[in-house]
Amino acid sequence: MTDSTSTGASIVRADGRTPADLREVTIERGWSAHAEGSALISFGNTKVLCTASFTNGVPRWMNGSGKGWVTAEYAMLPRSTNTRNDRESVKGRIGGRTHEISRLIGRSLRAVVDTKALGENTIQIDCDVLQADGGTRTAAITGAYVALADAIEWARGKKFIGQRATPLIDTVSAVSVGIIDGTPMLDLAYVEDVRAETDMNVVATGRGLFVEVQGTAEGAPFDRRELDALLDLALAGNLSLAEFQRAALAQSLAAAKGE
Amino acid sequence: MTDSTSTGASIVRADGRTPADLREVTIERGWSAHAEGSALISFGNTKVLCTASFTNGVPRWMNGSGKGWVTAEYAMLPRSTNTRNDRESVKGRIGGRTHEISRLIGRSLRAVVDTKALGENTIQIDCDVLQADGGTRTAAITGAYVALADAIEWARGKKFIGQRATPLIDTVSAVSVGIIDGTPMLDLAYVEDVRAETDMNVVATGRGLFVEVQGTAEGAPFDRRELDALLDLALAGNLSLAEFQRAALAQSLAAAKGE
Amino acid sequence: MTDSTSTGASIVRADGRTPADLREVTIERGWSAHAEGSALISFGNTKVLCTASFTNGVPRWMNGSGKGWVTAEYAMLPRSTNTRNDRESVKGRIGGRTHEISRLIGRSLRAVVDTKALGENTIQIDCDVLQADGGTRTAAITGAYVALADAIEWARGKKFIGQRATPLIDTVSAVSVGIIDGTPMLDLAYVEDVRAETDMNVVATGRGLFVEVQGTAEGAPFDRRELDALLDLALAGNLSLAEFQRAALAQSLAAAKGE
Amino acid sequence: MTDSTSTGASIVRADGRTPADLREVTIERGWSAHAEGSALISFGNTKVLCTASFTNGVPRWMNGSGKGWVTAEYAMLPRSTNTRNDRESVKGRIGGRTHEISRLIGRSLRAVVDTKALGENTIQIDCDVLQADGGTRTAAITGAYVALADAIEWARGKKFIGQRATPLIDTVSAVSVGIIDGTPMLDLAYVEDVRAETDMNVVATGRGLFVEVQGTAEGAPFDRRELDALLDLALAGNLSLAEFQRAALAQSLAAAKGE
Amino acid sequence: MTDSTSTGASIVRADGRTPADLREVTIERGWSAHAEGSALISFGNTKVLCTASFTNGVPRWMNGSGKGWVTAEYAMLPRSTNTRNDRESVKGRIGGRTHEISRLIGRSLRAVVDTKALGENTIQIDCDVLQADGGTRTAAITGAYVALADAIEWARGKKFIGQRATPLIDTVSAVSVGIIDGTPMLDLAYVEDVRAETDMNVVATGRGLFVEVQGTAEGAPFDRRELDALLDLALAGNLSLAEFQRAALAQSLAAAKGE
Amino acid sequence: MTDSTSTGASIVRADGRTPADLREVTIERGWSAHAEGSALISFGNTKVLCTASFTNGVPRWMNGSGKGWVTAEYAMLPRSTNTRNDRESVKGRIGGRTHEISRLIGRSLRAVVDTKALGENTIQIDCDVLQADGGTRTAAITGAYVALADAIEWARGKKFIGQRATPLIDTVSAVSVGIIDGTPMLDLAYVEDVRAETDMNVVATGRGLFVEVQGTAEGAPFDRRELDALLDLALAGNLSLAEFQRAALAQSLAAAKGE
Repeated sequence: MTDSTSTGASIVRADGRTPADLREVTIERGWSAHAEGSALISFGNTKVLCTASFTNGVPRWMNGSGKGWVTAEYAMLPRSTNTRNDRESVKGRIGGRTHEISRLIGRSLRAVVDTKALGENTIQIDCDVLQADGGTRTAAITGAYVALADAIEWARGKKFIGQRATPLIDTVSAVSVGIIDGTPMLDLAYVEDVRAETDMNVVATGRGLFVEVQGTAEGAPFDRRELDALLDLALAGNLSLAEFQRAALAQSLAAAKGE
Repeated sequence: MTDSTSTGASIVRADGRTPADLREVTIERGWSAHAEGSALISFGNTKVLCTASFTNGVPRWMNGSGKGWVTAEYAMLPRSTNTRNDRESVKGRIGGRTHEISRLIGRSLRAVVDTKALGENTIQIDCDVLQADGGTRTAAITGAYVALADAIEWARGKKFIGQRATPLIDTVSAVSVGIIDGTPMLDLAYVEDVRAETDMNVVATGRGLFVEVQGTAEGAPFDRRELDALLDLALAGNLSLAEFQRAALAQSLAAAKGE
Repeated sequence: MTDSTSTGASIVRADGRTPADLREVTIERGWSAHAEGSALISFGNTKVLCTASFTNGVPRWMNGSGKGWVTAEYAMLPRSTNTRNDRESVKGRIGGRTHEISRLIGRSLRAVVDTKALGENTIQIDCDVLQADGGTRTAAITGAYVALADAIEWARGKKFIGQRATPLIDTVSAVSVGIIDGTPMLDLAYVEDVRAETDMNVVATGRGLFVEVQGTAEGAPFDRRELDALLDLALAGNLSLAEFQRAALAQSLAAAKGE
Repeated sequence: MTDSTSTGASIVRADGRTPADLREVTIERGWSAHAEGSALISFGNTKVLCTASFTNGVPRWMNGSGKGWVTAEYAMLPRSTNTRNDRESVKGRIGGRTHEISRLIGRSLRAVVDTKALGENTIQIDCDVLQADGGTRTAAITGAYVALADAIEWARGKKFIGQRATPLIDTVSAVSVGIIDGTPMLDLAYVEDVRAETDMNVVATGRGLFVEVQGTAEGAPFDRRELDALLDLALAGNLSLAEFQRAALAQSLAAAKGE
Repeated sequence: MTDSTSTGASIVRADGRTPADLREVTIERGWSAHAEGSALISFGNTKVLCTASFTNGVPRWMNGSGKGWVTAEYAMLPRSTNTRNDRESVKGRIGGRTHEISRLIGRSLRAVVDTKALGENTIQIDCDVLQADGGTRTAAITGAYVALADAIEWARGKKFIGQRATPLIDTVSAVSVGIIDGTPMLDLAYVEDVRAETDMNVVATGRGLFVEVQGTAEGAPFDRRELDALLDLALAGNLSLAEFQRAALAQSLAAAKGE
Repeated sequence: MTDSTSTGASIVRADGRTPADLREVTIERGWSAHAEGSALISFGNTKVLCTASFTNGVPRWMNGSGKGWVTAEYAMLPRSTNTRNDRESVKGRIGGRTHEISRLIGRSLRAVVDTKALGENTIQIDCDVLQADGGTRTAAITGAYVALADAIEWARGKKFIGQRATPLIDTVSAVSVGIIDGTPMLDLAYVEDVRAETDMNVVATGRGLFVEVQGTAEGAPFDRRELDALLDLALAGNLSLAEFQRAALAQSLAAAKGE
């Protein structure tokens, strides 16, 4: 990053945002009639359906540990993208990118779960991208947290979790940041993502602590000053996302569902 | 079927319908920002996202035939159902039911396509069940027709298909019928489906001709009179669905999208 | 179907049959030295080896239900057909058609089995097409019934099934019908199958009740009158097949094996 | 092998044979209506259907070599054996034993084929075990040779192979030998195979040359004298099998098919 | 990280290192007799065999682009680890971790390759872990760079790459860092890795620029000060690794191979 | 083989050997820090890493038998060969050659193991070819025996096996032989292997008994005299290999590891 790296305050992006703006964020809690928790989240045109499925018991290797388990799977509908991708079920194998993102979502959520307080119960998160426009993994993590929170409340209502147990020790969200034409920018849309020299996904808690930092030089390697600017932007973005999550969860679920 | 088989006119179903009623049908045309044609269709709580992806050219074995190709894939999101199903991508193989339904959707659509008029172009249909409550395959076929029609209009606009070509020679839709406690009923919800002695899916054109008739004795085998009653009910249901399709397609796409 | 639809009584088919004739049917009971029940069935040049493997116990999910389980798998030898098909084992996945037919055979047999009377035992049916000339799935169902019946008698002899239990509540068979040049015809050979405008497989019990009706418009959609003509033909064909089954089973197994 | 190793002339086996006897061998040429060459071969109760599928052209890596290609696949029907084996297509992978035998059959046949004389044509051999009672691989090789010879004659008739070309430079057959209770025996049935201390499959040409020698100590390792005794027995057995092949091929194909 | 976070200068690790020490690094260039470039690298007890396979031409989708392609695959021998892991070839699918690391290695190397200067050639990197003791992915990247450099020199010798072309624009290496008991430490051995609260892999160029930063909170989320301390340590470690690489490459290859 | 078949005593091979010479054999015992037994064996440029993993217990089907289990897996690193081979894990299936060799190694080792004396314990052998130059399967068997012997001593030290139990009843090794230009030769290097008319792998015990004899006519079939010459050469070669094994195992393991 040369001296010309600016805070970019005067730059206007293709969709009218300033470099430090998130896209419009919406969270439809309780979208699914069947899942114990669910949220249809959108970051602009990126739409991800997140469901949380609660079951009693844990995988065999955790039996008797007194701890619960949270895991996640991510997938994209074949025509969620600009051109159609073959289904992984048809190809008979899951690609590396899918594996990577599924694992990232699971680790991110587990970072804010007290598995002792969850008890020997399993929550399976599914994040299915219905429409993709950049940032699908960050939207997935952000929406998955809401679905997870509702599934835990559901389980508390069913007495599968104690009334005073607090399995969630913080909130968690994620956002992408990147450097485009020398300017650090928040929450990249697809057209920005493909142009970014450096691309970073940052998962953080509502208290402003890091859970995952994954930065990649897509073009030229980046220096420490650039890295610092991106981290600043990402932490601020995650604090805003934590607000959206809190606001969504503040309503009663019935109100959230428009009932 | 015994003598007590009635037309069931006075029977009220769990959701308040009479035996010959469809569930509420909604069709959101143009749901997807990327696909050449798309529709989010609901039959009550069953919701299926149907996209049509248009590409120039045909599979190698059809090269030079002068004909186009329409094919379809069906899948369910893991938590579209009451209890979660493992992903077929994770299992590494597609189940028999998925294969069966994908093939059925493809055949049903091809029955109303003049592949000569389509020219050497391919339309790939994807039907992904977002929420399941019985009748997912019939909703998929009905919604896929709308997505297909929009993709063809898109291609006409791009001049990939001639202005006067009519690749669609009829409309096509599908509905389930079944006998429950001796009464033939239309468009079974999941709770009805599991109770049905006989279950039939009928695919028909807007002109009232049969494309597919698939009847299965889930419990006891059925006789000719029962079969006739089910076919009557299904044809009537399909004529109503054809009306919903025509109404949806009568709008301009922009209006349909609420723009 | 236009007014010219005839009963076709005066039409002679390529192999000399009238429209309502079955091909020559032969059933060699006890073909396999190892299986608890077996039959090599031929419908003309279509030859299918059907075996029934009896084992005590049921799949885990049925343990303690007091009920038995009947399931089926269908496959074709690679050169059973006119041109060679790759083996599904080599391809590493089972195709949709194979899945569909395996499921159909299993459902058809279960329709005539009283699983309570079978007790907690499993019968696995295998139908392997040694030579194909149209109607392989219908021959498979018809032959599988005979193998199933012999496996049940074997189990009765071994006292795995009670002496007075009647696990088979009816016979079951299947036949194809189709409309060729406007004429409904029974039991299509391969050259007829590829020419048929409409193709239907009908599974029925010896008492003349329907188990499965699967009709597909290969060319143009079909109307109600055509459907009715096909159903009439198929029921008559199935009654004849039930006779062949009864005749085969009337012999002692030793006599059937030519011992 | 101790001093007590005898030629075993006075020993009578469970099925009445002397140690040096083959089981009854039958070869039904032209069993398949579709394949260019075929034979249903039996070695006692072991029955293998062998087909040879001829196609013009060779795999891409042999294009322009002027040489042909012969390859083979072996498989067992699930209930060809005493207890049922799962299908390899269902398991989604081919087992090591199947791979080994398929490769052995292919190598054995290629040892007697002049691929230059075959021209750029491919012959695919399929050996499917319909019933197994020991020696399925040796029966498969012996029957496959007959199917191969008929496919070559078929191709000669179609002028795909020159009238004076001699793609077959010898005959080839195979037989198993083993040591049971110290006695070398020929052509082991299943009950013998499981008891054998040493088990060997020997593939040889009609002129008495070795193509493959595969000997395995199932129990104790074997010494040179035992090995020599087994090789003697196997060569004699293969010369008898070559006679059966010649006799089968001496007839006209129509006569062989009983026409 | 609390106030007690120290630079750890006085802490001695289990293997005698200070927190800022690398383990012993050795690089055996030219280990493989066949590969165009190769290196057996060790970071303490972690040993990875890295080979670079050069081929002319690029994957179809890059044809005519004038650019080359560098890709990588990573795998572990089944008993490279403390307890044996099943082979991924036997399981029939590649796990998420393997996918992730293979992709990371490929991206890391491409970050220092000028694909224009490479021309339409492909270099396939294979990193096989012969023995694992933490840091296998970082050793793999560091060794792979050496194999890559040798393959490029090999290609220059063969005139597949121009004499003045400089496909390598920098060196690249990787090292792990983590926080253990509040102390940031460099190059974690396995016993340290399992205890680390935070674990980060940092890929950097010889000029000290970042290529990848992947930090994960294994235990509690981490704050900005901890992140900064880890980044400092990792950059210093990578500069040392770059020295090892330069020293290894400074010798003639013959000398490196001990010839 | 014609009369000109000589003992070849005066023939010098490309690498300077006489026909009856082995290549240089080295055995590095204890190569792996983790495995209970291990050896890096080389036959000239062929290098195979053999590990033996000991675990208590046996596969379910052997529970309660009082016997142990020894099994083996073989694989090649992708660039162990002259040109790179795709990974079997990436292809998603194991090839026939790999299956064959894995099974051969397992059978060969089991021939010298008294499974009763091993007790209900499992030893899993892994043979991974790091570099290939012909004879990888024979080097694998020879090295695997050493790894197996060390794993058994390890288990004796841990008292998993009784102090007086002798699970190894003999040594076992393997070597290839072949006929090149009419001369029988021992231990073929890759360039010899591809030229051999006949190729045989012989597994034998230290007492000179045969465990496996696998001879294949790659070119022309071979006669009895040629077979005898090859068997003589192979037995002599195996006796030399048994000496190398005994010498390697005669040292203390610490000395063998250079400690």
